[in-house]
Amino acid sequence: MLEVIKIKIVIDAFGGDYAPTNVIKSAIEIKKELPNLEIIFAGNEKMLRNAASNLKLNISDFEILNAKDHISPEQSPREILKEKSESSMAIGLKALNDEKIDAFITAGSTGALAVGASFFNSKIKGVKRAALCPTIPSINGKFLLIDAGANLQCREDILFQFAVMGNVYAKKIFEIEQPKIGLANVGIEPEKGLSQHKEAYKLLSNCKTLNFIGNVEARYAPLGICDVVVSDGLCGNMILKTMEGTAKFLMKSFKEAYSLNFKTKLAAAILRKQHNQLKKRLDYKNYGGAILLGINKPLIKAHGNSTYKTLKKTIKQAVNCVEQNIVNEISCNIN
Amino acid sequence: MLEVIKIKIVIDAFGGDYAPTNVIKSAIEIKKELPNLEIIFAGNEKMLRNAASNLKLNISDFEILNAKDHISPEQSPREILKEKSESSMAIGLKALNDEKIDAFITAGSTGALAVGASFFNSKIKGVKRAALCPTIPSINGKFLLIDAGANLQCREDILFQFAVMGNVYAKKIFEIEQPKIGLANVGIEPEKGLSQHKEAYKLLSNCKTLNFIGNVEARYAPLGICDVVVSDGLCGNMILKTMEGTAKFLMKSFKEAYSLNFKTKLAAAILRKQHNQLKKRLDYKNYGGAILLGINKPLIKAHGNSTYKTLKKTIKQAVNCVEQNIVNEISCNIN
Repeated sequence: MLEVIKIKIVIDAFGGDYAPTNVIKSAIEIKKELPNLEIIFAGNEKMLRNAASNLKLNISDFEILNAKDHISPEQSPREILKEKSESSMAIGLKALNDEKIDAFITAGSTGALAVGASFFNSKIKGVKRAALCPTIPSINGKFLLIDAGANLQCREDILFQFAVMGNVYAKKIFEIEQPKIGLANVGIEPEKGLSQHKEAYKLLSNCKTLNFIGNVEARYAPLGICDVVVSDGLCGNMILKTMEGTAKFLMKSFKEAYSLNFKTKLAAAILRKQHNQLKKRLDYKNYGGAILLGINKPLIKAHGNSTYKTLKKTIKQAVNCVEQNIVNEISCNIN
Repeated sequence: MLEVIKIKIVIDAFGGDYAPTNVIKSAIEIKKELPNLEIIFAGNEKMLRNAASNLKLNISDFEILNAKDHISPEQSPREILKEKSESSMAIGLKALNDEKIDAFITAGSTGALAVGASFFNSKIKGVKRAALCPTIPSINGKFLLIDAGANLQCREDILFQFAVMGNVYAKKIFEIEQPKIGLANVGIEPEKGLSQHKEAYKLLSNCKTLNFIGNVEARYAPLGICDVVVSDGLCGNMILKTMEGTAKFLMKSFKEAYSLNFKTKLAAAILRKQHNQLKKRLDYKNYGGAILLGINKPLIKAHGNSTYKTLKKTIKQAVNCVEQNIVNEISCNIN
């Protein structure tokens, strides 16, 4: 497809823990694989050129959208609208309004991104709320969580739209013909949860184009019961972060237990490969970034601690979203 | 203390997956350790005597509160109030109103217990809502989660009371002098979350008798950031069940990875002890049952799949709650 259309992606060069080094490296690397892809940096031009020069990397082929400043994770998300409206993230978000730009990626603050996108960018016509959607590992693969924290409370019609958007993403990007959609709830019975859950359950059950499997208890999300977990941002955030914390707890406990004595250390050394493979499988970064579904262009939040390799994956994810035209697909399904 | 006061505990003989066998066995076993403890069975007398006879176990020393029937997990929780008001669980809950009875334990349906307790039992004066509180393993020990699903939505004053009750429990039962109290939220800043979170944050910050450490992201709960995690039942349920599911996902994945070939199997065999120890540490059952805090007598929900050994632990937990007089302690702190 890349021979047919030229894709232009803007990337926030000053978002995340390892910026701009990882951004520069990922852009140079991805160009080797996808020469027709155009990467544009958003960030302070002078600082960016200095960083590239220090790294002995050539970025003369890349366009730069000059930004005075950048948003740091310590700042209030709303600052992106005020003195930080000339930040690399704000510049990138605004660039997305240019019809020649196809997608935007940032590893910067999630809060600032949610605020900034809702201010600078348009939603797909008919979409009431944009939702933050990470791809999360499960025992038999992965699932999309919609929403992980952009909308703390959601009415039933919002939850229903999340299901529609998540369905499109899982179809197009996960390549699942009939994605299984579950509604995060405290029990499986239709009458469980708050009124919005009960009403969303009815709306989803009555929708013939969705493969709605019903309410899903949080314990079955990591056990791979469905491909899309629909949730308000508050519960979604609890699911996402509890998984992260529990995985860390277990991996650390294993490590401690295995370093008990010479024998256990030796056995652990034999199992190192398996252990590392599992660690890799659990690492969210390997599943790309979290897409902000509902915005009229693909807008992806890369992990704050993304390495250049992870950023490369996120760039590919953005390219895939553009090629699969998920925005148009959502637009067709939402109205 | 058992020499001084004689403790009487009622136990639902027909609640949980292994009832009544595990209940009978746990009662007989615990009597050997705590001869002054009086265990009373709630359940159908004829069925109970038949079961004991089949097991060749003597229960002639135990009092039985005869119940016509029992509540099965498939039934709607509200049925406990109607035709099931003569169930073993309902009989047990009603017996708790007798001043001679000190505590009640059931491994039956959590939903029915929450409904039944709110109907048949009184709350401690001043307590607005009773909360379900499991003890959950963390990387450095354990924490109390209040609430795990009895109250899906909670105002700030309810969340504040949860903190007060959780604090008493952690002090008395976990034996922590100044338990660290955290409020489950999507971020650590005081302005994070819904209005009830922001208001609860203020109430908790202003309370000098609580060691409030602030908002706690769900990822830090399993990492042991605090001793008591305060949450509404909806978020609490997500935390509890996501932890369960993630632990299962990881343990199963390890098992699969380690059975790859002869070498990995051999190494895994060497690490079996460590693996089993960790599995045990992760097993919620080893931390006792979930107490329904706020009721005017200790009322403990044992795990549905409790073995007789687990039930024994839960009985000891109930005895401890009676001896430590946590109900009185909550009463003194809530008003």
